[in-house]
Amino acid sequence: MAGGDGVVNEVFKLKMASAKEFRNALNAIATLIDEGAFLIDPEGLKLRAMDPSRIAMVDFMWGRSVFDEFEAPEEGAKLCLNIGELLKLLRKAGKDESIELGLDEATGRLKVVMRGRYTKSFTIPRLEATGEEAPGELKIPFDAKVTLDAKELRKAIADAALIADFVKISADGGKLVLSAEGEVSSATIEFPRDCEAVLDFDVKAASTATFDTSMLEKMLKAGSNLADIVTIEFSTNKPIKLDFRLPYEGKLVFYLAPRVEAE
Amino acid sequence: MAGGDGVVNEVFKLKMASAKEFRNALNAIATLIDEGAFLIDPEGLKLRAMDPSRIAMVDFMWGRSVFDEFEAPEEGAKLCLNIGELLKLLRKAGKDESIELGLDEATGRLKVVMRGRYTKSFTIPRLEATGEEAPGELKIPFDAKVTLDAKELRKAIADAALIADFVKISADGGKLVLSAEGEVSSATIEFPRDCEAVLDFDVKAASTATFDTSMLEKMLKAGSNLADIVTIEFSTNKPIKLDFRLPYEGKLVFYLAPRVEAE
Amino acid sequence: MAGGDGVVNEVFKLKMASAKEFRNALNAIATLIDEGAFLIDPEGLKLRAMDPSRIAMVDFMWGRSVFDEFEAPEEGAKLCLNIGELLKLLRKAGKDESIELGLDEATGRLKVVMRGRYTKSFTIPRLEATGEEAPGELKIPFDAKVTLDAKELRKAIADAALIADFVKISADGGKLVLSAEGEVSSATIEFPRDCEAVLDFDVKAASTATFDTSMLEKMLKAGSNLADIVTIEFSTNKPIKLDFRLPYEGKLVFYLAPRVEAE
Repeated sequence: MAGGDGVVNEVFKLKMASAKEFRNALNAIATLIDEGAFLIDPEGLKLRAMDPSRIAMVDFMWGRSVFDEFEAPEEGAKLCLNIGELLKLLRKAGKDESIELGLDEATGRLKVVMRGRYTKSFTIPRLEATGEEAPGELKIPFDAKVTLDAKELRKAIADAALIADFVKISADGGKLVLSAEGEVSSATIEFPRDCEAVLDFDVKAASTATFDTSMLEKMLKAGSNLADIVTIEFSTNKPIKLDFRLPYEGKLVFYLAPRVEAE
Repeated sequence: MAGGDGVVNEVFKLKMASAKEFRNALNAIATLIDEGAFLIDPEGLKLRAMDPSRIAMVDFMWGRSVFDEFEAPEEGAKLCLNIGELLKLLRKAGKDESIELGLDEATGRLKVVMRGRYTKSFTIPRLEATGEEAPGELKIPFDAKVTLDAKELRKAIADAALIADFVKISADGGKLVLSAEGEVSSATIEFPRDCEAVLDFDVKAASTATFDTSMLEKMLKAGSNLADIVTIEFSTNKPIKLDFRLPYEGKLVFYLAPRVEAE
Repeated sequence: MAGGDGVVNEVFKLKMASAKEFRNALNAIATLIDEGAFLIDPEGLKLRAMDPSRIAMVDFMWGRSVFDEFEAPEEGAKLCLNIGELLKLLRKAGKDESIELGLDEATGRLKVVMRGRYTKSFTIPRLEATGEEAPGELKIPFDAKVTLDAKELRKAIADAALIADFVKISADGGKLVLSAEGEVSSATIEFPRDCEAVLDFDVKAASTATFDTSMLEKMLKAGSNLADIVTIEFSTNKPIKLDFRLPYEGKLVFYLAPRVEAE
């Protein structure tokens, strides 16, 4: 099966029971990027990419156990796609439809087969790999770490978004606080460490940083379609990490740089 | 009751329990035409008309048994209407409202009375008959005839519409296939003759023709509001017939001309 | 507690279990006005105001028993607000969120605290009182008084709105009638005194007046979010009164001037 003489073996096959779940994952990624370079290797399906403005990063992985069938070359296959195009085809995916992705060997395109009460198959072109390296994994030590109900955090960020384009997130030993200052009104949203929405609370040092509200909104919308629980980690004036706890082997992490205020 | 001396007796009265069902039928017709000439004769309520671009035809009939009360002159009464205007009035019709149509003898207008928790009556003007003859019934021999779940066919056409403006429909002894070729992606949707969505399958000769996707979408949307099952019939490069099986005495058939490709 | 030397004591505190109910009340008021001057006195929360075009008036009151906590200065506090701004903050209020309104003594702003699975607090500026007196209570003797299902009246007005910008409302001993004359069609909607939608019917003299359909639509939409039943009162060519029966101590009354036809 291994290719020789510069011929790279890129044969892969991914199959899962729910086309809708796959669509939700793509939607999460599409939050940040239009074109994505997936890596399919024996561990699973992976993508790590920065958004065009380079203030945010998504780190996604689905382990091979998520799939009903999973074949990947030892050295990994790269799959560059226009994610929006693929999502358009999946828009009507029902939850009883299975999905299968593979290489259409005749055309070199990605072939997507969905099976429900009837069978539909699509092919879409693969893009040229940009040559750009995927960003490395971020290793930042954080001072504050709070695990909470993703839907509640999503609603709180949406409330802050009503007031201002930026939200200040801070934590001390007792609570997590979101605050927004708009031109006419201001808001403060508090999650005391023992409130119902907070599952785990670990703050080593009081921390504060300010973030783009609409980016956080998009990340929380995407993540809460796949996960019920999110762990946020941050430090003063450092990026924030949103780690969504997927209900199966996998990873969905967003990073967002803080707003650096002019001095 | 018969009129004499050129006076045509046009008294008619149609009454049915569900104003909503009547609205759905009008909606189906409005898919193709804005102004319609209904014929009300002792058999029932009928309309056969081509769309303005003359690539499609609707052939509609509700037998008198569909109505709770039905009176029509022997020689038939013609009722020309702006269907959009009438639909506007019915837009809010609830399913517990009955509807009654008749001639308002004082004004010559159509009188519509709807009874629910209160009574409302509308009058709307009748249009001049255009003098144009209704098209005759189409008698085309077809090579392929497939009966299937109208909702599933509707979804399949919607999937094809994501890809391209035209869809190729073909059938051989084993399956019905829809295929669409877009600029970036392509789709193939298969209904094997023994799949769950197919109820009956009779293909005398392999057949293929290409149709306007959006016209098919509109027809299937309209038809699947009134019927669960549709029989499609077609032959190579001939019009397609969509015959919706109404759950009572009646007929809803659409015809659509194939796309003739430049040579 | 009383202020001295020109210092007016304006400390107030209003607390209720459902932020959503409070939002519905604001929405009802926002039907007519953008900026509102509430009076908070020992009886409750009150607002009486005319719309900018001065053809309509809203008379709103919630008694103190509606609130879980209620504190108001003896002489009353005036609270002028941009209602649209406040509504924006309440847009996402869930039905399990409580709401508390008070004065933020540091800034003089209105402070709104909502408590659900987490706590959020907003402040918004109070506007200058315009100095304009609130309109007095209207005391008009009416000839016709009909109590009916607010949702059914709302639907009937919506039906009339499909036809024309103005609706004629009339009543005699037997029924309430709405009629609308449009350019192409006309409608008559009848509520016989013994029909299911009518709860009470008291017509002293046959009465008829014509009103702006869209104003009535807005009032009925707003009112039927808070009340199931409405009593309308009118006389020939006089304003109409819509009195919504709130399910607790309070008042929501709209008045609308009739259309005066050119002679």
